[in-house]
Amino acid sequence: MTPRVREILSWYGSDNPGTLSNLAKLMNHGRLKGTGKLVILPVDQGFEHGPTRSFAKNPDGYDPNYHIELAIESGCNGYAAPLGFIEAVARDYAGEIPLILKINNSDSLYGSKSPISALSSNIEDALRLGCSAIGFTIYPGSSDRKQMYEEIAQASALAKKAGLAVIVWAYPRGEQLSKEGETAIDVVAYAAHIACQLGAHIVKVKPPTAFLEQEAAKKVYETNGVKISTLADRTRNVVQSCFNGKRIVIFSGGETKGTDELLKEVKEMAMGGSFGSIMGRNAFQRPKKEAIKLLQDVMDAFSGAR
Amino acid sequence: MTPRVREILSWYGSDNPGTLSNLAKLMNHGRLKGTGKLVILPVDQGFEHGPTRSFAKNPDGYDPNYHIELAIESGCNGYAAPLGFIEAVARDYAGEIPLILKINNSDSLYGSKSPISALSSNIEDALRLGCSAIGFTIYPGSSDRKQMYEEIAQASALAKKAGLAVIVWAYPRGEQLSKEGETAIDVVAYAAHIACQLGAHIVKVKPPTAFLEQEAAKKVYETNGVKISTLADRTRNVVQSCFNGKRIVIFSGGETKGTDELLKEVKEMAMGGSFGSIMGRNAFQRPKKEAIKLLQDVMDAFSGAR
Amino acid sequence: MTPRVREILSWYGSDNPGTLSNLAKLMNHGRLKGTGKLVILPVDQGFEHGPTRSFAKNPDGYDPNYHIELAIESGCNGYAAPLGFIEAVARDYAGEIPLILKINNSDSLYGSKSPISALSSNIEDALRLGCSAIGFTIYPGSSDRKQMYEEIAQASALAKKAGLAVIVWAYPRGEQLSKEGETAIDVVAYAAHIACQLGAHIVKVKPPTAFLEQEAAKKVYETNGVKISTLADRTRNVVQSCFNGKRIVIFSGGETKGTDELLKEVKEMAMGGSFGSIMGRNAFQRPKKEAIKLLQDVMDAFSGAR
Amino acid sequence: MTPRVREILSWYGSDNPGTLSNLAKLMNHGRLKGTGKLVILPVDQGFEHGPTRSFAKNPDGYDPNYHIELAIESGCNGYAAPLGFIEAVARDYAGEIPLILKINNSDSLYGSKSPISALSSNIEDALRLGCSAIGFTIYPGSSDRKQMYEEIAQASALAKKAGLAVIVWAYPRGEQLSKEGETAIDVVAYAAHIACQLGAHIVKVKPPTAFLEQEAAKKVYETNGVKISTLADRTRNVVQSCFNGKRIVIFSGGETKGTDELLKEVKEMAMGGSFGSIMGRNAFQRPKKEAIKLLQDVMDAFSGAR
Amino acid sequence: MTPRVREILSWYGSDNPGTLSNLAKLMNHGRLKGTGKLVILPVDQGFEHGPTRSFAKNPDGYDPNYHIELAIESGCNGYAAPLGFIEAVARDYAGEIPLILKINNSDSLYGSKSPISALSSNIEDALRLGCSAIGFTIYPGSSDRKQMYEEIAQASALAKKAGLAVIVWAYPRGEQLSKEGETAIDVVAYAAHIACQLGAHIVKVKPPTAFLEQEAAKKVYETNGVKISTLADRTRNVVQSCFNGKRIVIFSGGETKGTDELLKEVKEMAMGGSFGSIMGRNAFQRPKKEAIKLLQDVMDAFSGAR
Repeated sequence: MTPRVREILSWYGSDNPGTLSNLAKLMNHGRLKGTGKLVILPVDQGFEHGPTRSFAKNPDGYDPNYHIELAIESGCNGYAAPLGFIEAVARDYAGEIPLILKINNSDSLYGSKSPISALSSNIEDALRLGCSAIGFTIYPGSSDRKQMYEEIAQASALAKKAGLAVIVWAYPRGEQLSKEGETAIDVVAYAAHIACQLGAHIVKVKPPTAFLEQEAAKKVYETNGVKISTLADRTRNVVQSCFNGKRIVIFSGGETKGTDELLKEVKEMAMGGSFGSIMGRNAFQRPKKEAIKLLQDVMDAFSGAR
Repeated sequence: MTPRVREILSWYGSDNPGTLSNLAKLMNHGRLKGTGKLVILPVDQGFEHGPTRSFAKNPDGYDPNYHIELAIESGCNGYAAPLGFIEAVARDYAGEIPLILKINNSDSLYGSKSPISALSSNIEDALRLGCSAIGFTIYPGSSDRKQMYEEIAQASALAKKAGLAVIVWAYPRGEQLSKEGETAIDVVAYAAHIACQLGAHIVKVKPPTAFLEQEAAKKVYETNGVKISTLADRTRNVVQSCFNGKRIVIFSGGETKGTDELLKEVKEMAMGGSFGSIMGRNAFQRPKKEAIKLLQDVMDAFSGAR
Repeated sequence: MTPRVREILSWYGSDNPGTLSNLAKLMNHGRLKGTGKLVILPVDQGFEHGPTRSFAKNPDGYDPNYHIELAIESGCNGYAAPLGFIEAVARDYAGEIPLILKINNSDSLYGSKSPISALSSNIEDALRLGCSAIGFTIYPGSSDRKQMYEEIAQASALAKKAGLAVIVWAYPRGEQLSKEGETAIDVVAYAAHIACQLGAHIVKVKPPTAFLEQEAAKKVYETNGVKISTLADRTRNVVQSCFNGKRIVIFSGGETKGTDELLKEVKEMAMGGSFGSIMGRNAFQRPKKEAIKLLQDVMDAFSGAR
Repeated sequence: MTPRVREILSWYGSDNPGTLSNLAKLMNHGRLKGTGKLVILPVDQGFEHGPTRSFAKNPDGYDPNYHIELAIESGCNGYAAPLGFIEAVARDYAGEIPLILKINNSDSLYGSKSPISALSSNIEDALRLGCSAIGFTIYPGSSDRKQMYEEIAQASALAKKAGLAVIVWAYPRGEQLSKEGETAIDVVAYAAHIACQLGAHIVKVKPPTAFLEQEAAKKVYETNGVKISTLADRTRNVVQSCFNGKRIVIFSGGETKGTDELLKEVKEMAMGGSFGSIMGRNAFQRPKKEAIKLLQDVMDAFSGAR
Repeated sequence: MTPRVREILSWYGSDNPGTLSNLAKLMNHGRLKGTGKLVILPVDQGFEHGPTRSFAKNPDGYDPNYHIELAIESGCNGYAAPLGFIEAVARDYAGEIPLILKINNSDSLYGSKSPISALSSNIEDALRLGCSAIGFTIYPGSSDRKQMYEEIAQASALAKKAGLAVIVWAYPRGEQLSKEGETAIDVVAYAAHIACQLGAHIVKVKPPTAFLEQEAAKKVYETNGVKISTLADRTRNVVQSCFNGKRIVIFSGGETKGTDELLKEVKEMAMGGSFGSIMGRNAFQRPKKEAIKLLQDVMDAFSGAR
């Protein structure tokens, strides 16, 4: 156990040894093991956007084995997916990489201004499949937030009892948020804080923009001179909002984009104190070799080993 | 156990021996036994469309015994029906054919743009009646999808614990889908994928058309040159969307139609990799002798034995 | 046990001996015992329409003892009522007549286009009060049908475990049905079929008219020459829709009417294969002596003993 | 045990000895003990209308001890209040007077056309606090009646198992009732009947007026010459509607009013067969001495001892 | 145990020794120990208003350790926060100050006219984290009050069984209340009374204004000459509304304001019988030293020790 991993675990003083072991397992796996940094491969896009939209570009991705192999070969800390994809690989790859069961999901055949995902699996599934953590999406800003927060609160209580870690995807979205506001720094930092207060061990957000959505927040950012002009600044604001850096917060890659642009973003976020990346489409929609190179470049940006 | 059945079972590595036994039971019964192909007789039309609309054409069909006898005599792999019809025959025909309890149902005395079926029976019913599997309809696209997905997630978790197989009828339908879109290839493939991610062992969809419903999907189909012009092509896209062919997907017969047209469709789908057919009205609305011939012709199309 | 009762019981092969005993108890009680026919006295009109509207005409009816005595003295097969009325008589008349606890009820102080009754008692109540069966009203056609069907499915599962019989009152009603359609032959036959599929042992419907409500059904009735011109014909269509006569279906008397008209109706339905009558207001709103005569005339119409 | 109390208990043949003991305890306490008549002091007005509106007139009433002492000193049969008020006195006055825990409540900071109270305490609370009965308000006529009736059905089932008595406050109110209709004789009698059918041991209603709300009821009252011109007549109709007098029905005092008017009303209702009064504001908003005199005058009106 | 603390505990005669011990623990901790007065530090503003809005002014506040240290060093009776913040400190500061787990929370990314908080943690969390009490916000006036009251009723029942104390934040808000009405004396006193009736041991409200919101209340205040012109008067009306002073009621500081104004308010409320203060933003948004001075000045205003 490296001192850094030990330090990070010390922030989770209310968790049982089971949960700490699973957090340690995530941090002590793969190319970034022991650094306290995490790169995770998530593959729920088939559910969220449809199989052809997700996998036609690189048809190997239709196969559930492909993704877990990509995660293992590139040296990711963990692999996250919905029930079906995890069930398809859990036995054959048992013990090869920490698994994260994404227990709620949404699809794109119906869209709503008050989004809320469906509970597609549960803590017992995570246990029987040998997972280390559950993943859960909240949409702060949705008028259905009460139900959502209660769902994660209940799932989280069960997960913690069972010694699992809890990872919350925090995506602001809802009736009273503008499109731009969904990635505004004030809103993203707020959403990350909510996830932490709900008891998440690890939070995932999108890279925030310099836009400020809420009038009351804007005033405070300006009055107190909170820096948000660079992505590193904004990352710092988000990290601070996660209990002053005492909760792990990682950032997604977002829409597929060019490799250079993506790595530049990742480096900025690493500078701002990000604990890592969670990167799906940018990885699995490329040929495997390229994807492995990209993922490892991202990891190296975090480990500073390059 | 044939190598093919053994291979198919190998895809379900997270299931317990009970569930594998029931999947094997379905694949090892009837005229298609051992081929890994399935033809199932489903009779829930009395509930879904009304008794007279379903059975007046061939009044023998009012009698629950008629259908299970048709399924047995024609050599189907299984017989699927709602609680009442199963309760009416389960003792007298115990052990003669694998039974599938359709645990949710809808009727036509009320229609809604956000369809959702009622849970008309449960896992305990399936067990006490000696069934091998439960059947469940989802309507991806409905604004009630959250509730539906959670119902099947919960029923499925119980079924798997109890060693039952889970068959999902995936019928896209809802406020934001056009009528044409309900059988569009992008939508059908997507619905099938959702069913797999929700943990279904077997998925049932309607034969897809070459129509593309969603703008974002259309672009991807075109850009990546995904073939959808023939029914065999489209079947292939659906099969691929079901975990690259590692989940069993079967196709319904749809509206009653001429025998030739129906067999032509079945053969195209067999070419595209379909695992079989599930055929109700096309079977039980003909005189028994004709129905048996038709069902066996369909089976032969799959076994290639003709 | 007469051969006819034994035959009827043979249709319920999935039920446990407890439930069969209670079905037998209903069929082997009163003037019609052993015939396989049933006449039941139901008194929930105080709840459904109000006490004065129900009982002012024959004020003896305000008293709960009156009704059970009427049922006993006339030789009915059973007596059905809501919790309060059953609780008021269960001890004093214990063992004198099979009791049916009506576990859901509606009142007329609020009316809705999507009707649904309230669960006013439960299976445990039925057991502690010594009842043989539960009664439950469904309104096929209501937009609340999902909830309703699930309520009866759950109550029914518990009842069957506990060895009780399940009687479903099937009253089509709802937003998309015309007033005339509520008693249309296609709709009534459909509602009766739904009740059977939901697992009812006995179904109660209103006498159907020759009206055809649904376009798709109308076409089928006409194309296939399904006879519906006489009440006997229509009764036959309903009986057939109840698993080809393998589920007990009985008919209500409806609005109070003249004795001759009522008996004529009953005889027609008996000819069409009805298993009996369930008759409330037509009985208890007359002086007791007249009511006993009427009920016995109805029974005799079924036993053919007249 | 007086013969009259014994007679009343005989109407509750389906209840266990625990519940009968608690009914007896209520009838055998205070100035009216043994008469089968009841005067109960209810104090939920602080919750229903606000503390200052309820208690400013006689500020002693802010104190929870005041009310139970008033009930004890005046010789009431029981004292009814919400959780907070009961918790505040249950230990200090244990064993001094039968307590009734009002398990649902409403406040006036929000008003709705479809009223429904909140479940503010439960059967376990009633047991740990040594209560003899639970109190529950229903609003027949509200579009939320299904939920309400199911709440009381469930609470009542638990209460009866635990040997408690069940008292239902039946207040017609809702979208389709006129203001006048809320106290109309047809509606009040109907509401009282519903409460009895739901299994209440004791029903509380407001004094009914001679107004007839529902067309269908009006016709029946007129055709059958049901007398409703005097309050005694109307009380008789309500008592009859409560299982022909076999369920205890008591009447509230309503808005505060002059002593003479109030006593006149009480005497008329006593003549009509009322089993007693439940009187809050008319009692606790007067100085204690006056209140005791009033309550005892009311009691004497029922015992005929004056 | 001082006589005053013993006296206060005597008002909670229905609670078990576990709950009394926790109430005593709160009253016997910190600078005000033994006085029966309480000053509590609550930090849920990160959740309620966002992290930057709450903590940018004094960035030490991003860190969960900061707040509990502030509470300990200033000698508060207790520290209240949502799950995340409590989990972050519970082990390291175990036994140093009574903890209050705020089990429901709301955020500002969506606003509704019918506010209701989400249940973000539960009684088991409170127990495993070593808390002495749970905190719960109700919004009397919201159209969702039924659900809210039932949530606190259920949580409270569990908390009392487990020996925890129950603190209710009562904030009137809703469709039928004006903005001014949310702090009107009639409304605040009413909300505090509701909280007491729901079984709260300690109630928290905002300082009330002299505005009167409800017509019916206004009349009563005027007719009976209820004094409300000074804050002390209004505090007295609130204290009286809390069971004549037999329930602990404390007041919040509200929006951040100048020290003098704040202390003046506190002294007025102390004169009116307030049991203490609960003060968040006014404390943690100042430099620690200033905050400690302020909190201690507030405490001294209550102890009269200055």
